Amino acid sequence: MPSAKAPSAPRGGIDLGGTKIEAIVVDGRNNVLGASRKPTPTTGEPEGVAKQLVEALGEAAQLAGVEPSRLQGVGVGSPGVVDPVSGAVSGARNLPGWDGTFELASVLAERFGTRVAVGNDVQVATDAEYKLGAGKPYKSLLGVFWGTGVGGGLILAGKPWLGRGGAGEIGHMVVKKNGAKCPCGRRGCMEAYAGRAAMEARARRQVDKGQKTDLFKLMKERGRDRLTSAIWARALDHKDKMATKLIDEAVEALGVGIASAINLLDVEAVVIGGGLGVRLGQPYAKRIAKEMQPHLFNDRHPPDVHVAALGDLGGALGAALLARSTRRGNGTPNAS
Amino acid sequence: MPSAKAPSAPRGGIDLGGTKIEAIVVDGRNNVLGASRKPTPTTGEPEGVAKQLVEALGEAAQLAGVEPSRLQGVGVGSPGVVDPVSGAVSGARNLPGWDGTFELASVLAERFGTRVAVGNDVQVATDAEYKLGAGKPYKSLLGVFWGTGVGGGLILAGKPWLGRGGAGEIGHMVVKKNGAKCPCGRRGCMEAYAGRAAMEARARRQVDKGQKTDLFKLMKERGRDRLTSAIWARALDHKDKMATKLIDEAVEALGVGIASAINLLDVEAVVIGGGLGVRLGQPYAKRIAKEMQPHLFNDRHPPDVHVAALGDLGGALGAALLARSTRRGNGTPNAS
Repeated sequence: MPSAKAPSAPRGGIDLGGTKIEAIVVDGRNNVLGASRKPTPTTGEPEGVAKQLVEALGEAAQLAGVEPSRLQGVGVGSPGVVDPVSGAVSGARNLPGWDGTFELASVLAERFGTRVAVGNDVQVATDAEYKLGAGKPYKSLLGVFWGTGVGGGLILAGKPWLGRGGAGEIGHMVVKKNGAKCPCGRRGCMEAYAGRAAMEARARRQVDKGQKTDLFKLMKERGRDRLTSAIWARALDHKDKMATKLIDEAVEALGVGIASAINLLDVEAVVIGGGLGVRLGQPYAKRIAKEMQPHLFNDRHPPDVHVAALGDLGGALGAALLARSTRRGNGTPNAS
Repeated sequence: MPSAKAPSAPRGGIDLGGTKIEAIVVDGRNNVLGASRKPTPTTGEPEGVAKQLVEALGEAAQLAGVEPSRLQGVGVGSPGVVDPVSGAVSGARNLPGWDGTFELASVLAERFGTRVAVGNDVQVATDAEYKLGAGKPYKSLLGVFWGTGVGGGLILAGKPWLGRGGAGEIGHMVVKKNGAKCPCGRRGCMEAYAGRAAMEARARRQVDKGQKTDLFKLMKERGRDRLTSAIWARALDHKDKMATKLIDEAVEALGVGIASAINLLDVEAVVIGGGLGVRLGQPYAKRIAKEMQPHLFNDRHPPDVHVAALGDLGGALGAALLARSTRRGNGTPNAS
């Protein structure tokens, strides 16, 4: 008697980040059958990025022993503004030559020979935590992705909430009016205090003023040209004074901003992901929860706060989930 | 041929505020058939408040020519925490002796002889603007009620969003970390800069320090013991320097806080209500929109900003809408 549902065909998932491309092929139960990681091109045009995506997924599919055209579909989590109908991506400023609009879904669908769905990278990672990770016990949650910037994703009443397509910009909630300048050009955003790029810029300015830190020494030792999450973590281990102070300020800003979001939305849980969030892990999720507490209006009933359970693979797994939906685009039931 | 739906039986709506009680009876098309206004008791127990509610609705029903027991139902918009199932109200600190829990829905249902639904006052007023007022063209909106405090209500995908029951506390979103003390005891909340109670406290402190204003002279002339919205409006008309500066700061805080909410939620519209919001009207809604603009992440696509169209009656009309639902309590489809 065929009572159990047969696992469906393998699917592809690609997390398109500003630094790296992570491609996976999963089976119907979201087990990873093959994975590949490639650097994101830093020069050129969107076509070059698309080519790299094709190569990365091709490798993952080869490792999984399946032709890309035999995949049920491929999902992509992308920065920038994603058109939910066409899967076109606009204004992905972290990607080379991508200020305009590029028909990412159509181009990839032709190369792969299967259908392609594109969603916002942060929302896709939030969906993955909701369906497969730390958000599984809840019907409403806020995903906070603490990395180069600070991105946010929302699940409300069991569905992604995208607003008019631009929701989730928690990094640009103001935590201090007339405050520090943010990489986005505005003032006082949470990201101006907590984003890795903003923190690095601040560290450089402090070094220029003669303050001491091992952050840039660690960077050179590792042959990097920017302060990665691993470098921040190492500097904290070494009790580097400047790194400690900057991370303390970041944790404070995250606490204030996330508490504001909770006062507005009162969701059940917060999931902290992103490069820094995953690297610093549970002790820092606890510290963020502690910084939230004095600003929570319903302080007797704080939300649960967890570290993202899927780690670095969350984005690609969430992208693969996108390919499960029957529609093209990012399949938003409640975009208005 | 009975093609048009017959208007249903009259319903009652009561807006229970910290200063006044507004009761109405409406017909099936939400036309007001009778209305009554009474002061909210400032001493005593919840029973005394309930008695005043019974009297106010009794008067409105008498003017409408209908027995309360013949009403299809009565809705109440209440401060405090409302139990969505039982209609009990807890911790309504603006009301006398109401720190604990009082079975408001049950007590009123017995007195009126009809069913009673209780909802959060701010959410109920937001629902009214959504269904009957300035929010009619939209599927998602943020209601901001600028009065003694600053309350918020959300409509997302056509439904009220209450979170775990405590959503909408936009007044306690932080606009300045380590900022001014709020009447709630926390620091840097939007309400610490924009709430009428906080503004009055600040004005008193500035007078104590020797600064000049006509605010308290106007208050005495009108025989009031606090700075009402009408007094603030009059002082602005007189170009009172202190009043102008405090209102400017309030408008800035509202702009910053509402922009933060929009960055997170990306709803289509903002409706500004409450005593100050309605009294100061369209010119100030425009000023708030202007203060939001520099903080909006999607600044090319700002939300529409309107003044509440139902004015002071919004709360009572929204309460009457509650009585239309078939369930007791606040009938939240998406509370999780």
